[in-house]
Amino acid sequence: MRTIKLVLEYDGALFFGFQRQHSHRTVQSELEAAAKKLFQKQLTIYPAGRTDSGVHAEGQAVHFKTDSKIPLSKIQAGFNFYLPKEIAVTEIREMPASFHARFSAKRKTYVYHVYNSRVRSPLFASRSFQVPYDLNVAEMRKAAGLLKGKRDFGVFEASGSRRKSTVRTLYRLNIQKKGKHLFFILESDGFLYRMVRGIVGTLLWVGMGKIRAGDMRLLLKQKRRKSLGSTVPPHGLCLKSVGY
Amino acid sequence: MRTIKLVLEYDGALFFGFQRQHSHRTVQSELEAAAKKLFQKQLTIYPAGRTDSGVHAEGQAVHFKTDSKIPLSKIQAGFNFYLPKEIAVTEIREMPASFHARFSAKRKTYVYHVYNSRVRSPLFASRSFQVPYDLNVAEMRKAAGLLKGKRDFGVFEASGSRRKSTVRTLYRLNIQKKGKHLFFILESDGFLYRMVRGIVGTLLWVGMGKIRAGDMRLLLKQKRRKSLGSTVPPHGLCLKSVGY
Repeated sequence: MRTIKLVLEYDGALFFGFQRQHSHRTVQSELEAAAKKLFQKQLTIYPAGRTDSGVHAEGQAVHFKTDSKIPLSKIQAGFNFYLPKEIAVTEIREMPASFHARFSAKRKTYVYHVYNSRVRSPLFASRSFQVPYDLNVAEMRKAAGLLKGKRDFGVFEASGSRRKSTVRTLYRLNIQKKGKHLFFILESDGFLYRMVRGIVGTLLWVGMGKIRAGDMRLLLKQKRRKSLGSTVPPHGLCLKSVGY
Repeated sequence: MRTIKLVLEYDGALFFGFQRQHSHRTVQSELEAAAKKLFQKQLTIYPAGRTDSGVHAEGQAVHFKTDSKIPLSKIQAGFNFYLPKEIAVTEIREMPASFHARFSAKRKTYVYHVYNSRVRSPLFASRSFQVPYDLNVAEMRKAAGLLKGKRDFGVFEASGSRRKSTVRTLYRLNIQKKGKHLFFILESDGFLYRMVRGIVGTLLWVGMGKIRAGDMRLLLKQKRRKSLGSTVPPHGLCLKSVGY
């Protein structure tokens, strides 16, 4: 049995997220349909993380097991032939049997794209979240610096999740500004559900002056979700890479 | 009578180009439909240049005349309210009566986006042209340097056009490389029809080794269209700005 890892790029706009769903078009169902045509067998594709509906990926990782003897380059070409144009396999690698796209993942990097302008941007509409208010980027960067590190990010997790620990390490939380575009780059050993979009929403509140950068750690500890910024929409989010 | 200039951003993927056409959705027909709702009067919108079907714009300029007394900020908001989401008015200005979006234009800047990879990119598919061959960027830059300046670019013009002169000045012809992305930036006092896409196609031929950088000026003078690279497709092209 071979264990094969794929790196995927996809435009999330036209999918109901990653996870297979009955009667909805998802990334997983498209991948598994392509695999069935390619291997003439049903198999399961496991992702590093399930992306929500509308979320994009430049470097999602997945794995599957197969006893097929098709060489890697042909498997990649086969997937890219059968997959719809919104999904592409950009890399392929054979891994040890113990490899698991989710459990072996050490780091993930997400980028959230904000378009900061009173006028919407037709060219970036499906890829960014438009914020029509003035933002104090210096204050946002100050708050970002205070959120970095190993902390309990439980306040951002959507209710109903059940996890052992909500402590995560944020290795990176940078804001790049290029004209009207703001890119929030987040790297962590793992993200709680909706954590990225909660953090970005909170930093936007800081930028608008609704909360103070200096209060970041206190607000995190108080765990009152409503004292922090709203969760920003999924279409500005992109899973950039998964590290193993 | 007021003369008003608009700067437009649009996603060209869903339009049959700029120019009004019977029974086809074009940027001009959408703009004129929005203007009619806004001013309760039919008027004509004049562009700096007609973009082809599929071509995008980040800074197209247009003008129109009106006797309406609506303040500029409300005209902009009105257009953005009535226009479909693929078009936005990003700037508005009142101009002297002699201003004409096309005839007053002094410079135009276009950017052509090439995605250089064997695997297609779902995230950039509608905005870039995929080139799956290895490209020698140093040679392409050498050829670009030889094309710059005041020259007869007549060889690139599609047959059937009738112009007094096909001499144009290329102020800028740079190639920026960011990973798998190549951006061709062209600035000129005016472009002949399909000149940008012809030049980019020619530089790609240089990059693939089909023609030599050193032969650029000779090939331009010989005016044999088939000795130069094919016209690249419209969806990689974006009208970046118009200078007055």
